[in-house]
Amino acid sequence: MKKHNFSAGPCILPQSVLQKSAEAVLNFNNLNLSLIEISHRSKDFVEVMETAQSLALVHLQLQNKGYKALFLQGGASMQFLMTAYNLLEKKAAYLNTGTWSEKAIKEAKMLGEVIEVASSKSENFNFIPKNYNIPKDADYFHCTSNNTIYGTQMQDFPKTEIPLVCDMSSDIFSRQLDFSKFGLIYAGAQKNMGPAGTTLVVIKEEILGKVSRAIPSMLNYKVHLDKDSMFNTPPVFSVYVSMLTMQWLKDSGGISAIEKVNNEKAALLYSEIDRNALFEGFVSKKEDRSKMNATFNLKNDGLKATFDDHLKQAGINGINGHRSIGGYRASMYNALPLESVQVLVDVMQTVEKGA
Amino acid sequence: MKKHNFSAGPCILPQSVLQKSAEAVLNFNNLNLSLIEISHRSKDFVEVMETAQSLALVHLQLQNKGYKALFLQGGASMQFLMTAYNLLEKKAAYLNTGTWSEKAIKEAKMLGEVIEVASSKSENFNFIPKNYNIPKDADYFHCTSNNTIYGTQMQDFPKTEIPLVCDMSSDIFSRQLDFSKFGLIYAGAQKNMGPAGTTLVVIKEEILGKVSRAIPSMLNYKVHLDKDSMFNTPPVFSVYVSMLTMQWLKDSGGISAIEKVNNEKAALLYSEIDRNALFEGFVSKKEDRSKMNATFNLKNDGLKATFDDHLKQAGINGINGHRSIGGYRASMYNALPLESVQVLVDVMQTVEKGA
Ligand SMILES: Cc1ncc(COP(=O)(O)O)c(C=O)c1O
Ligand SMILES: Cc1ncc(COP(=O)(O)O)c(C=O)c1O
Ligand SMILES: [Mg+2]
Ligand SMILES: [Mg+2]
Ligand SMILES: [Mg+2]
Ligand SMILES: [Mg+2]
Repeated sequence: MKKHNFSAGPCILPQSVLQKSAEAVLNFNNLNLSLIEISHRSKDFVEVMETAQSLALVHLQLQNKGYKALFLQGGASMQFLMTAYNLLEKKAAYLNTGTWSEKAIKEAKMLGEVIEVASSKSENFNFIPKNYNIPKDADYFHCTSNNTIYGTQMQDFPKTEIPLVCDMSSDIFSRQLDFSKFGLIYAGAQKNMGPAGTTLVVIKEEILGKVSRAIPSMLNYKVHLDKDSMFNTPPVFSVYVSMLTMQWLKDSGGISAIEKVNNEKAALLYSEIDRNALFEGFVSKKEDRSKMNATFNLKNDGLKATFDDHLKQAGINGINGHRSIGGYRASMYNALPLESVQVLVDVMQTVEKGA
Repeated sequence: MKKHNFSAGPCILPQSVLQKSAEAVLNFNNLNLSLIEISHRSKDFVEVMETAQSLALVHLQLQNKGYKALFLQGGASMQFLMTAYNLLEKKAAYLNTGTWSEKAIKEAKMLGEVIEVASSKSENFNFIPKNYNIPKDADYFHCTSNNTIYGTQMQDFPKTEIPLVCDMSSDIFSRQLDFSKFGLIYAGAQKNMGPAGTTLVVIKEEILGKVSRAIPSMLNYKVHLDKDSMFNTPPVFSVYVSMLTMQWLKDSGGISAIEKVNNEKAALLYSEIDRNALFEGFVSKKEDRSKMNATFNLKNDGLKATFDDHLKQAGINGINGHRSIGGYRASMYNALPLESVQVLVDVMQTVEKGA
């Protein structure tokens, strides 16, 4: 039975990408060798890494603007630490919009002073704070563009003279933005970019080299930049599948084309959440709703078993809310077709009719 | 054409493992979902992680002896840093047997005093130093069991009261040892265990908790142990393929059985290197020769083109020496069949006859 995969991450990838990845595991580039059993220094794999790095910059329109792309290990969680290790000399400003922001703040505090410019914690992170002040003398400002757990998404980013550092793990490549506003962007691959196991870091090189501490090799962006993400053995398979996914995005018309589909999918689901009396959205202000992760609740708990049963029958996967907030979460990443959202909406309407 | 894959890492994996991995990328556990698009918190993946951790302890005969196994990201290079971060309070003792030892020493020096107990650097690391003294008041002793680049391997490990920490990246699961002598063992997966992208760390829990510094979450073994390698999203594919490879090893009779084959392969190749007047081994003392990576030179450079051509015609892949020492390196990891070594020996004899 066909599955409709609303998983929050690791999550749905394009079927053609899965097909090519499986083939490469058996025989890569007609070498009669598997992708995962060749040297990462071989011509064939170096080309994969270079293509992946280049596609990331192309999608973000950051070629020839002083930026470089890295594919590292450790997940976005390692970036909570690395951003601070490389950029935090005295103090840094953080916007607290959820669990992931909090974890980033925790690591940064080990290395310097952290100014929390605003927080939505008291409201269980159900909105995005606005109108905060960023201290001009902070080393950088850190924010989370999309809050995977709560289903909120930043629409605007502050104008500031200090480097803007952003965790885009769950909405990278989903919408057009002026990415050249950012000093550093990072994203775990396992949402819109590929499988778990690698993390994209896009850095404006000029923001580096300003801290006085000694930085361990593996935590040092400069070390990885000097070796083009090959300081040590890279996560070969994850980089390859990310490359294929970015290639698929390019062939699909790039970010501008996928953004239109993402807007349609979000509009379809949110209008049903609003229209259908059985459901309500989790996010308090509609303008903060995420187009990637739609969080909602069933108002009447007594219908949960029925709803869950219909979801299962329809082949819907991965739609439970994060354990910290409960309810439901429909993640609608780039690779999820509009058709899957329609199937979910149909289920919501079926349950409404039966209730 | 069938390839004989002597690559030093990433390297050959069992064909049945590649087959199952490719299938899982398309449809995992008959879920009609790919292994790489399901939540790492799903029952199906949690089982993979638990099985992988358990198989690692089984192979090392370390169950119920106070050890835990972790699968982390970052490669063995991240362990150069993490071992020191978690264990080095004042000073640590290191044996320097090659590039990888040196890199481990470099990271440790950022965190405390390093006593280099012995080094073979002046001889281009072509032997393993013996009869050194380990300071009793060091926090731990670190060594590299197999030196991938130079083709040397430690046969004996020092008796010492302080924790023994060992980088077994290139010979893990290849031979029987009393693994309970070690306080911490780490190994990048991409040789005997699986594809690049994950690193096995086996820790005797009692050696932790003795340093006074604050440890960042992602570098903290305790944090990862408390979450059973799921503090953040693990490298799903790499852990799965590692699990399959360890399963294959178990089905093949475990370390004791594979060690016999590894001994046969090494004996076959080294006797030819010694017998054949065209070749000479790189390692100065025969007792230090590695059974995983056999390094050798062609005495007459004029025959290089001929030898390389014959290697190519025979389908031999990945046999060039590391760029830092040149010559040839035949890596004979667990998954390499005896047959491939025979093909290499045949080529060496063919070139001898023609010369
Ligand atoms: C926005 C965001 N940041 C960070 C993370 C942590 O990523 P990782 O598990 O790769 O460390 C996640 C994981 O879901 C996330 O959604
Ligand atoms: C013995 C040894 N230690 C460490 C490393 C570094 O491993 P990684 O590239 O996973 O950081 C290697 C790589 O070949 C190795 O052979
Ligand atoms: Mg969040
Ligand atoms: Mg409603
Ligand atoms: Mg070495
Ligand atoms: Mg000889």
